[in-house]
Amino acid sequence: MTDRPTLAELVDPPFADRHVGPRPAELERMLAAIGAGSLEELGERALPPSIRDSAPVPTSIPEAASETEMLAELRELADRNTVTVPMIGLGYSGTVTPPVIRRHVLENPAWYTAYTPYQPEISQGRLEALLAFQTMVADLTALPIAGASLLDEATAAAEAMTLLRRAGRAKSARFVVDADTLPQTLDVLRTRAEPLGIELVVADLAEGLPEGELFGALLSYPGASGRVRDLRAVVEEVHTRGGLVAVAADLLALTVLTPPGELGADAAVGTTQRFGVPLGFGGPHAGYLSVRQEFARQLPGRLVGVSRDADGNPALRLALQTREQHIRREKATSNICTAQVLLAVVAACYAVYHGPSGLTRIARRTHRFASLLAEGLRAGGVEVVHADFFDTVVARVPDADAVADAAHAAGIAVRRISADTLGLSCSELTTVAHLEALFTAFGVTASVAELDAATDDALPAALRRESEFLTHPTFHEHRSETALMRWLRRLADADLALDRTMIPLGSCTMKLNATAEMEPITWPEFADLHPFAPAADAAGTLEMISRLERWLAELTGYAAVSVQPNAGSQGELAGLLAIAAYHRSRGESERTVCLIPSSAHGTNAASAVMAGMRVVVVGTDALGNVDLDDLRAKIDSHRDTLAALMITYPSTHGVYETDVRLVCEAVHEAGGQVYVDGANLNALVGLSRPGAFGGDVSHLNLHKTFCIPHGGGGPGVGPVAVAEHLAEFLPGRGTVGAVSAAPHGSPGVLPISWAYIRMMGVDGLRRATLTAVAAANYVAARLGEHYPVLYAGAEGLVAHECILDLRGITKESGVTVDDVAKRLADYGLHAPTMSFPVAGTLMVEPTESEDLAEIDRFVDAMIGIREEIRRVQAGEWPVEDNPLRGAPHTAASLVDKWDHPYSRDIAAYPNGLTPGVHDRKVWPPVRRIDQAHGDRNLVCSCPPIEAYSS
Amino acid sequence: MTDRPTLAELVDPPFADRHVGPRPAELERMLAAIGAGSLEELGERALPPSIRDSAPVPTSIPEAASETEMLAELRELADRNTVTVPMIGLGYSGTVTPPVIRRHVLENPAWYTAYTPYQPEISQGRLEALLAFQTMVADLTALPIAGASLLDEATAAAEAMTLLRRAGRAKSARFVVDADTLPQTLDVLRTRAEPLGIELVVADLAEGLPEGELFGALLSYPGASGRVRDLRAVVEEVHTRGGLVAVAADLLALTVLTPPGELGADAAVGTTQRFGVPLGFGGPHAGYLSVRQEFARQLPGRLVGVSRDADGNPALRLALQTREQHIRREKATSNICTAQVLLAVVAACYAVYHGPSGLTRIARRTHRFASLLAEGLRAGGVEVVHADFFDTVVARVPDADAVADAAHAAGIAVRRISADTLGLSCSELTTVAHLEALFTAFGVTASVAELDAATDDALPAALRRESEFLTHPTFHEHRSETALMRWLRRLADADLALDRTMIPLGSCTMKLNATAEMEPITWPEFADLHPFAPAADAAGTLEMISRLERWLAELTGYAAVSVQPNAGSQGELAGLLAIAAYHRSRGESERTVCLIPSSAHGTNAASAVMAGMRVVVVGTDALGNVDLDDLRAKIDSHRDTLAALMITYPSTHGVYETDVRLVCEAVHEAGGQVYVDGANLNALVGLSRPGAFGGDVSHLNLHKTFCIPHGGGGPGVGPVAVAEHLAEFLPGRGTVGAVSAAPHGSPGVLPISWAYIRMMGVDGLRRATLTAVAAANYVAARLGEHYPVLYAGAEGLVAHECILDLRGITKESGVTVDDVAKRLADYGLHAPTMSFPVAGTLMVEPTESEDLAEIDRFVDAMIGIREEIRRVQAGEWPVEDNPLRGAPHTAASLVDKWDHPYSRDIAAYPNGLTPGVHDRKVWPPVRRIDQAHGDRNLVCSCPPIEAYSS
Repeated sequence: MTDRPTLAELVDPPFADRHVGPRPAELERMLAAIGAGSLEELGERALPPSIRDSAPVPTSIPEAASETEMLAELRELADRNTVTVPMIGLGYSGTVTPPVIRRHVLENPAWYTAYTPYQPEISQGRLEALLAFQTMVADLTALPIAGASLLDEATAAAEAMTLLRRAGRAKSARFVVDADTLPQTLDVLRTRAEPLGIELVVADLAEGLPEGELFGALLSYPGASGRVRDLRAVVEEVHTRGGLVAVAADLLALTVLTPPGELGADAAVGTTQRFGVPLGFGGPHAGYLSVRQEFARQLPGRLVGVSRDADGNPALRLALQTREQHIRREKATSNICTAQVLLAVVAACYAVYHGPSGLTRIARRTHRFASLLAEGLRAGGVEVVHADFFDTVVARVPDADAVADAAHAAGIAVRRISADTLGLSCSELTTVAHLEALFTAFGVTASVAELDAATDDALPAALRRESEFLTHPTFHEHRSETALMRWLRRLADADLALDRTMIPLGSCTMKLNATAEMEPITWPEFADLHPFAPAADAAGTLEMISRLERWLAELTGYAAVSVQPNAGSQGELAGLLAIAAYHRSRGESERTVCLIPSSAHGTNAASAVMAGMRVVVVGTDALGNVDLDDLRAKIDSHRDTLAALMITYPSTHGVYETDVRLVCEAVHEAGGQVYVDGANLNALVGLSRPGAFGGDVSHLNLHKTFCIPHGGGGPGVGPVAVAEHLAEFLPGRGTVGAVSAAPHGSPGVLPISWAYIRMMGVDGLRRATLTAVAAANYVAARLGEHYPVLYAGAEGLVAHECILDLRGITKESGVTVDDVAKRLADYGLHAPTMSFPVAGTLMVEPTESEDLAEIDRFVDAMIGIREEIRRVQAGEWPVEDNPLRGAPHTAASLVDKWDHPYSRDIAAYPNGLTPGVHDRKVWPPVRRIDQAHGDRNLVCSCPPIEAYSS
Repeated sequence: MTDRPTLAELVDPPFADRHVGPRPAELERMLAAIGAGSLEELGERALPPSIRDSAPVPTSIPEAASETEMLAELRELADRNTVTVPMIGLGYSGTVTPPVIRRHVLENPAWYTAYTPYQPEISQGRLEALLAFQTMVADLTALPIAGASLLDEATAAAEAMTLLRRAGRAKSARFVVDADTLPQTLDVLRTRAEPLGIELVVADLAEGLPEGELFGALLSYPGASGRVRDLRAVVEEVHTRGGLVAVAADLLALTVLTPPGELGADAAVGTTQRFGVPLGFGGPHAGYLSVRQEFARQLPGRLVGVSRDADGNPALRLALQTREQHIRREKATSNICTAQVLLAVVAACYAVYHGPSGLTRIARRTHRFASLLAEGLRAGGVEVVHADFFDTVVARVPDADAVADAAHAAGIAVRRISADTLGLSCSELTTVAHLEALFTAFGVTASVAELDAATDDALPAALRRESEFLTHPTFHEHRSETALMRWLRRLADADLALDRTMIPLGSCTMKLNATAEMEPITWPEFADLHPFAPAADAAGTLEMISRLERWLAELTGYAAVSVQPNAGSQGELAGLLAIAAYHRSRGESERTVCLIPSSAHGTNAASAVMAGMRVVVVGTDALGNVDLDDLRAKIDSHRDTLAALMITYPSTHGVYETDVRLVCEAVHEAGGQVYVDGANLNALVGLSRPGAFGGDVSHLNLHKTFCIPHGGGGPGVGPVAVAEHLAEFLPGRGTVGAVSAAPHGSPGVLPISWAYIRMMGVDGLRRATLTAVAAANYVAARLGEHYPVLYAGAEGLVAHECILDLRGITKESGVTVDDVAKRLADYGLHAPTMSFPVAGTLMVEPTESEDLAEIDRFVDAMIGIREEIRRVQAGEWPVEDNPLRGAPHTAASLVDKWDHPYSRDIAAYPNGLTPGVHDRKVWPPVRRIDQAHGDRNLVCSCPPIEAYSS
């Protein structure tokens, strides 16, 4: 042929072409609607020049890799890890993720791309799974109210500590912790207690409770050493002294041991990791917290409850939401926003799959192996430290290192407690061969079969569990793989996730979670690493984390990053703790005032309080920007005590504030530090860096900007990024303690963000940012004539999201944001963020991953809804009976008698969808849910089956 | 604790507990309904003692492994494979399966567990994907009618050969094949031509067409050598002589080369493997065959066509079904039953994802690499044999082995054509580094960059493609990963697969395809092996195949098994060819009569004809059994020419015939061989062995009995099992040629069956069989009073399926099996097999994987339907307007005006489903489809988008 394109002209388009939704022709149409000539021009007009990077910033981020190249690199890193049989214990156990759960939940976008179930009518599936989780925890701990998961065991213990303080009547600030507590839990408790003025007393409670007052105590069951003790006497003593008791308990052990609730405990905490959740070098896993009924309203985090829908059918939703930090701000009792939904679902599925008998069998076998191991060691002359244990044997030897090395050579990682002491934790994975290998490592000759014939179990008879658990049919009906698979599909089908619709949630950035990014997280080399495995065994993961931290620092303009915080809220806390420690290190510990704009997310205020700071609110002006005059006034009033300003950029109003540099300078000038909340970083990456325009610290939300999927409401990952002078105050680096249980937070999902950055390169990231800004401005341009757009920047442009103001429309028509949000479900769409940051508005963030057809589908639906509102305004439909108030409509509601002033057709097919495969219609499984009813009649575990047959 | 269960008492339940649906208490209820005391008793009563294994038969199948153990063993086998860069060519190319397609199709049960789309109303998703496949093939080959895939390129070529013979007017039996044809294609052509009396002439057509008559010719484009020639002159010459031409063409090359249709070809064949389908050591892949419009009705296999539904909306279904072998029996022109749907879907998705521009870019880059490789070699003094090529360079060297070894050491596998000739095939995977490694292996110094600047492409200018292709919007609208993912979800949601409902298809055995069985097939070590890779590179796969063949032989009582046949139909053919060769080897080539009972599947007859046999039908008695008197009479009339009897056991009527031993003996006594069709082997495994009760040969359906999923209509795998005296006549072992392109058929999916057997053990397999028999008898017991059960065995028991006779009901009520089948969709259920083996009946096979709740859901639906039929009979509803005739009902059909004598509620919720998450309601996307309309107005490629907006 005459033409001859070169290889360079024939390379595949970059991954960014797949990540970004609009095709070039579509982008042109979008830019035309906005009135911008190009993406670059749009960026120049939208972003204030004062913060814009004038030239590309050098980074160590390589040129964009293809999916194939990226996967090969990650494979190479994975291969540097060494997966051993994990017998280290310390709250992390070997477990088998049943393949059916791995494929149908962990690897299924219907589960992992879903958002937090704030729109319960289109979230019944994961709400049901979470209710099963709550039931599982409540049953096993014998404490009736369990939340829908917390971040990990250590933070759950910290939440329990503060819960006991506010729930109890004791005036004391003392909290006693048994010395036999997991070290990482102790570490996080210390971090969390100090700023709140809680005095932590660590004591060996086997020797009795230390003298003096206390508001509560934390016991471990079994202890970190594996020892199982009868806690009843200590619990009673704490109660006698007016305190309350939390017990950190191993859920698997509770299938055979008297549960904390029956020992008198007021709360139980722990992890559900060993219920099928991969170790992932530390996370993400679902922590749990359960309490007595009377503490329900004190529970931090999310709580799923049963209510009813408009047709009187049972329906689930998040209960008691007024407790939450986004409403209570600085009066909040916790800054917990996210849960670990995806992992909680896995743990619940594991319990559903095994049922009570299966869990008990696994527990008994685990214990049996531990018993045989102990007896074999004893018989071989090795000292076994504790007589009563569940899964962990502590053994004393002359040279612990030598034995640990021998075990490691046989493929088993044990816990080296001290120079002469080893911990050996059995699990679901333990086999006879492992025991034999351990005996060999210890230089002991023992026959497992002979031991089996001769050895008693080592659980105290007085602690034998007698009460039933998991009696609900859910834990009995899905035992064959076919049944479990269908149950999971049915639940998934009840929910709207990114695999069926855009989720235009302002501030939440629901972008593509690409398959190539997701695949590596279930590779055994990443999934099966114990967090306390020898560093050499985790060489690949550690290298991956180190590169990711460097890339994130470069992208944000900071000096250092820690991925330890396993949620944005924990990143905030870590950042503020760093600021506080910095001031302290300079002898300025009086600096405790934290300025927060009134528009800030409530979590900011809650985190500041948790960091021991005092919140002072700064006003915003009519455009939604920080009121500079008020800021200066507030700085002046608190000049000597100013610790920090927390500011979100672009603002929670979705606007690039012009004066952010001035704001930062004003704070710095007064000796304060600037905390730039990274929630909206998706509008900055590649264009501007918070660390370069004045931020001293930021947290990032990898689950927003960097493609970790929302998982239906978690996991989140919230690395904290700091300037050079704060680097020594990052969590767990000496000065400031840990904020998460695991040293690196949730490494199990970090390959996702690594892969995203690796495949996008800086150019791709920048293109994503600009495309996201274009998408938001396109929505604003098309919808502006139908719904007022509340805020815009200097050039009349929004950033990556826009706020549609419905307050006037509501006043005129009676139709509320709720009505509009629920009506969108009838269109097969997920609602935008409701009433945040401004009540009565909808905040829309289309992200860069949606193509024009999908954005237009949303815009057209919103316009169609506006027309329906007009018909209500015109009196054609009464405000109490129209397609909006009636929304969402279930299929069942349409086939019965019909006595509404609008037709079934309008109810079901408002957008005139063509029937057939391309129909985007999705039928919600329930109608509008009565929130108040459920809060008045709180039911937070699986209801009896009869409830469904009404 | 006082009790101490031993380890043995605490082991996990076997995998069989997850595979089998009914829990012990459910099984008891089922047995009670049947009137059997235990599974064992049921087995003893149902199976004639004459065929039952009286004691467990020793096998090499190990004790059942757990999922974890099995995966570890398979991982160990996988690790024995060595994956190299495949540059061997020969019709198999390296390709990238886009991760989004891997996860959302290949690893998604909604796709892989679906059945063949015989119920089109609940199969619109995969029918649309297949229509895209057909459009893709038709566009690229420029031949307007393309089927929905064939088994592989070689069998497609054989089908093309016979198609040309019957479609053309030539009287000649000669078929000319170009010498530059893939050797495996030549091999299969030889196998297939000989029994049909076709004279194959292999000639170098570059030298012109050999003298003499011919009915057709097969050309290759490019040739097996990679050479690209202008075929127009040869095509014209064949036409001039009255013959027709098929061209075996590389679809990727057709993006840049003038397509066969424009060269004058009458048909095109090939594979779509390089469109994203993993190599899998040879398969499964989707072959293709496209033809000129006037040959549409001659096309073998399945053809998707556009029609309309009862509401006039466009709807897809299989077209021209009366062509098919199950109807035409011995008059059929092909025995092809199955397609390679799952792989065809992957290939279609690949085209949708890349679009015409992307495919062209990949083609041009592939070609560019080949051009640079050729030029670099030439410049380095290596002789390059052909000047014009697409992706393959043939090079002459002094020592081919030495160069091949050097390349292999660098991780690249090349084709060793002869002692001094190598073939080097580029692909989507080729990189600059690969070229550099090859230059090194050849001892040539060359710079790829310099070559790139100086080298012309090597495609003949006269063959440059000018015509457009893939212009339909489907190939342009789903380019971002988000868009593709949502399209795939939408399509999947239109279909009912095993992840949502039982599929009680008699004779098809839709059992669980467990995740642990499925996971290994996408492991790169299994997925990325070239079929002609050096045996050492495939050591693990070869060992896996060898064990599987041994296990299958032991389970069926035969001496040897070949997994080469990649569908049941090919297994039949292979088995019959073995019988024919056996007779020939004994000098009894006159033995060509094949006795087939009238109840047999039509494929039996078609296969017999293809094997060169003459079909003689044997009658069946009133109970559906072979009429022994008629059999003896037929044997007597054909005593000297009797080749074989084909019999299905249990019978196609779902009955264990008592006299099967007598039948076999009668045939043997007359010198015939017994072919036991293994379609119903799910009723025998672990209880009885065809090879032990008289069979000489059987084929098995791994996609029925051994858990390979149906894939929406393929892949199938049909190993042939033979007694000792037939072992030398297995395909490809010398005497009989190949029946499939790849030596081992479809090794890519064999890990599934391997894993199933490994996790079940013989005990588990036996338990599965007995449970399947119990499930069928339970259905018969519960439904017998509502629908007559047509056939039963001696004890009044059925085998693993039962036939419900609707003929009387239809006569009395006018309600047909079609009405009942479509009505089941309204219940969220998939219909049983319709009108096979007896017109007017439904054949139900629940399988062992369904639990009692699901079986009862089906039974209750059938009883509900019976009640509805009674209302029609009672005149309450007219026969032309009732919920049965109106079925299935789309949601859209319910919201419009309603003028039926039954309510919307009855239409939609016949089973009184409770709304909510547990609602099993599924909405079909279309109403009942008009089959005749589509056949009258044949449209077999994507219709213009306007068709959907009517």
